[in-house]
Amino acid sequence: MSVAAATDEVATAGLVLGDLATRFGCEVIGDPDARVRRVATLASAGDGDLAFLANPKYRRYLKQTRATAVVLSDDAAGDCPANALIAKDPYVIYARIAQLLYATPALPGERHAGAMCDPSAVISDSARIGPGAVVEANAVIGERARIGPNCVVGHDSHIGDDSVLVASVTVGHGARIGRRVTLHPGAVIGADGFGYARDDAQWVKVPQVGSVIIGDDVDVGAGTTIDRGAVEDTVIEEGVKLDNQIQIGHNVRVGAHTIIAACSGVSGSTVIGKRCLIGGAVGFVGHLNIADDVTITGQTMVNRSITEPGGVYSSALPMDDAVRWRKNSARFRKLDDLTRTVKRLEKRLEDDD
Amino acid sequence: MSVAAATDEVATAGLVLGDLATRFGCEVIGDPDARVRRVATLASAGDGDLAFLANPKYRRYLKQTRATAVVLSDDAAGDCPANALIAKDPYVIYARIAQLLYATPALPGERHAGAMCDPSAVISDSARIGPGAVVEANAVIGERARIGPNCVVGHDSHIGDDSVLVASVTVGHGARIGRRVTLHPGAVIGADGFGYARDDAQWVKVPQVGSVIIGDDVDVGAGTTIDRGAVEDTVIEEGVKLDNQIQIGHNVRVGAHTIIAACSGVSGSTVIGKRCLIGGAVGFVGHLNIADDVTITGQTMVNRSITEPGGVYSSALPMDDAVRWRKNSARFRKLDDLTRTVKRLEKRLEDDD
Amino acid sequence: MSVAAATDEVATAGLVLGDLATRFGCEVIGDPDARVRRVATLASAGDGDLAFLANPKYRRYLKQTRATAVVLSDDAAGDCPANALIAKDPYVIYARIAQLLYATPALPGERHAGAMCDPSAVISDSARIGPGAVVEANAVIGERARIGPNCVVGHDSHIGDDSVLVASVTVGHGARIGRRVTLHPGAVIGADGFGYARDDAQWVKVPQVGSVIIGDDVDVGAGTTIDRGAVEDTVIEEGVKLDNQIQIGHNVRVGAHTIIAACSGVSGSTVIGKRCLIGGAVGFVGHLNIADDVTITGQTMVNRSITEPGGVYSSALPMDDAVRWRKNSARFRKLDDLTRTVKRLEKRLEDDD
Repeated sequence: MSVAAATDEVATAGLVLGDLATRFGCEVIGDPDARVRRVATLASAGDGDLAFLANPKYRRYLKQTRATAVVLSDDAAGDCPANALIAKDPYVIYARIAQLLYATPALPGERHAGAMCDPSAVISDSARIGPGAVVEANAVIGERARIGPNCVVGHDSHIGDDSVLVASVTVGHGARIGRRVTLHPGAVIGADGFGYARDDAQWVKVPQVGSVIIGDDVDVGAGTTIDRGAVEDTVIEEGVKLDNQIQIGHNVRVGAHTIIAACSGVSGSTVIGKRCLIGGAVGFVGHLNIADDVTITGQTMVNRSITEPGGVYSSALPMDDAVRWRKNSARFRKLDDLTRTVKRLEKRLEDDD
Repeated sequence: MSVAAATDEVATAGLVLGDLATRFGCEVIGDPDARVRRVATLASAGDGDLAFLANPKYRRYLKQTRATAVVLSDDAAGDCPANALIAKDPYVIYARIAQLLYATPALPGERHAGAMCDPSAVISDSARIGPGAVVEANAVIGERARIGPNCVVGHDSHIGDDSVLVASVTVGHGARIGRRVTLHPGAVIGADGFGYARDDAQWVKVPQVGSVIIGDDVDVGAGTTIDRGAVEDTVIEEGVKLDNQIQIGHNVRVGAHTIIAACSGVSGSTVIGKRCLIGGAVGFVGHLNIADDVTITGQTMVNRSITEPGGVYSSALPMDDAVRWRKNSARFRKLDDLTRTVKRLEKRLEDDD
Repeated sequence: MSVAAATDEVATAGLVLGDLATRFGCEVIGDPDARVRRVATLASAGDGDLAFLANPKYRRYLKQTRATAVVLSDDAAGDCPANALIAKDPYVIYARIAQLLYATPALPGERHAGAMCDPSAVISDSARIGPGAVVEANAVIGERARIGPNCVVGHDSHIGDDSVLVASVTVGHGARIGRRVTLHPGAVIGADGFGYARDDAQWVKVPQVGSVIIGDDVDVGAGTTIDRGAVEDTVIEEGVKLDNQIQIGHNVRVGAHTIIAACSGVSGSTVIGKRCLIGGAVGFVGHLNIADDVTITGQTMVNRSITEPGGVYSSALPMDDAVRWRKNSARFRKLDDLTRTVKRLEKRLEDDD
């Protein structure tokens, strides 16, 4: 039976709690034969719905939930009026069950009549090429890959098996996209890096002859841009998750399983370690090295390398009432003077002793 | 007579000042039979041009203007060498007259030969579908809607009457776009929200099964991205105006008639009130509640909820000369120490008393 | 012989060092008959490769390089184990040689069967229009211009000779793009500026009837948006280089040869001088005047005009350890109080004298 059929079946028959418990190593409290068909929030869930509790902030919704089942941790089970799936990490188990409930049906390969594929492109029979999609010369499209409507796949590029270009994605020539990668609408992979040599008042373009390599299981958000390398390649390692409207400059390397929130930018030749957590609107200057497992909070300007793994770094000032803000920021303009004054006063008092 | 013809007529015959005054409740000073055909700035206007004065900064251009008519407020009328339309709010009246002068001609419905519409899509006869546009299965396109060149309208989505997808816009499956909405080029509505559960060093994708609801009279700027909800929907209420390159995360709600300037980002599940004024490059962290009528100045990091309506908030430091800046920001790194020193000095002086 | 053939010839035969030295006014040390075919980094270069040394940071790779030739300055020549091209500005000379090695082949004009060009558009025979590209009514496409896959060229717009719209670019109606301009994927030229008049709680759209003028030799990065003017035009002067995801508001003017790094935004009606260097994620408020030759460092909020040419300006705080950061930023919220306290202490000590 195809996954597509299974998914339709899920919509009507649902998944059995006892089966899910076995599959994911959870404990069922309540009716192991109950079935869930959809996900919902604790507050809005009804018959057939699976909800979850991971953030304690939402615990107040638990007692009144009308969900058929809730994924939660052991300590919250006592308050749960519905069937419960007890999990050590409820959010992970919820995610995995939701993946089953909403599995994308595996459709047969197809090339839409409105797709424009160069005859030299090598396109798997199981791939789906949507209307308005362009596949240029010598591009390779892997098994079960989906090239959505109005995407462009540049010449000599390679899209791995089971990868999805959702819609309106542009992949430049020679880029190599791994397996199970998702590129969201408006993403641009492999535009030229920003390289110019200054010749008096003019800028001489430095040809950008590297490419972009994206590892397996990477997700790239809507409107995110990843530039090709100047000479060598820009590299996004496996498992990296990039949110929307992120800018990755040429020759950057983002380490495996690092996650970056929206609107951040990484300047050229900066290397970010593995498993880092990068907040939104963070800016990295170029040519830095960031160690593994580093956390950067939102709106930070990362202006130097970080050699020690695992630290947490910031530089954004928190919001304040505008009037108080104006006063404080005016004082900031004289902070150096203030510091000198304090040092002088301190010295004078010491001298008094 | 069609509006198209009327618009052509405007270009040749112009609009009569007296008629405009009646229609918009203004007073004419000068010739009520004078006609305007175009808009122009005070400085560059000539015969047949309508200009306006709203920002006092530009008043110096008034005395020399060669405009046929100027929209301005009562107190500036004495300096106006041209015909004047006296309005309480000149900018609003100027905007409304300009809308008449530049009304988009109402063209008959048309489906371009290069459009790719799924047979199951329900497309109004009065809608216009441009070249390269893709309309997927079961999408609904309302009366007089315009789907511009190379746009993608996902399956099961709904585009309301009189809405315009200018060009190269992507609307994901199941999104609901209201009436008289404009989506500018490169906008992406309904990409997946950024949701992952951490399972050791790996990220497990949380299916994003909500959608995006956009109310009537919303404008969305070029390159702006609005993600679909994780479980429930992301909602942009009626009359909201979003500038370019804004990022709206999953489950966000933006209240009616709120306006947000370019390059701002709103993280997941944050709720912004009605009639707020949000500057450019503002970042909101997730899960906040912002009251109605709040103003946030540019580049602020909104890191906490705002419960009281109507306040003004900031957090960006103003620019300074780089050398002075460097000194002050170096001192900032020791601001806590400085504060402690001052407290110590203060205490010592108190002890002296 | 066509340039295309020459380029193929370069790939097999290479360029002769002696010829390059003559052409670019360099000195050869080593074998003037040696040939280079590709570029590479000092560290990875091999036979047939040209490398360069401009950043002293990479000098440690020079002694071991296996490049056939290295472009470098006189003072580094002694350490070079390969043939050397001695240049006063090695990066400029490297850029010019790389342009020869990677010259885009001049292909004959072509209109892809999947292009959708309005019959009234005036398209040079030597222009290339790619699959899925849309050229609207009365647009003019210059000699040897390339309109890549899935681009949209709006009605009445003008694309100059030798300009390239790489792919998925949107140019709005009436825009004028100069010669030798490159627009990278996802760029949007000529979307409406963000202009609304407030009428009580509602926003009245101000028609944006100006256009966008882009000078010769301008590069526009991926996802960058340049809005049309409200009444007059938005202008990008010749030789400007814009990185990715930059936002240029209506009526802005960017002076010739100014360069702006990624993720910056310029609000409406701001005028930036010539030859300015603008860092990444810089935000300009509206209606400013910035003098020529000004440098703005990354993440600065430019909140006032700069009248004197040539200065350097900043406003971003550098990153710090998050714990120390939190302490200092909490103190910042009371910086005005602290300053007052210090003034009081100072006065009291003066009184003691």
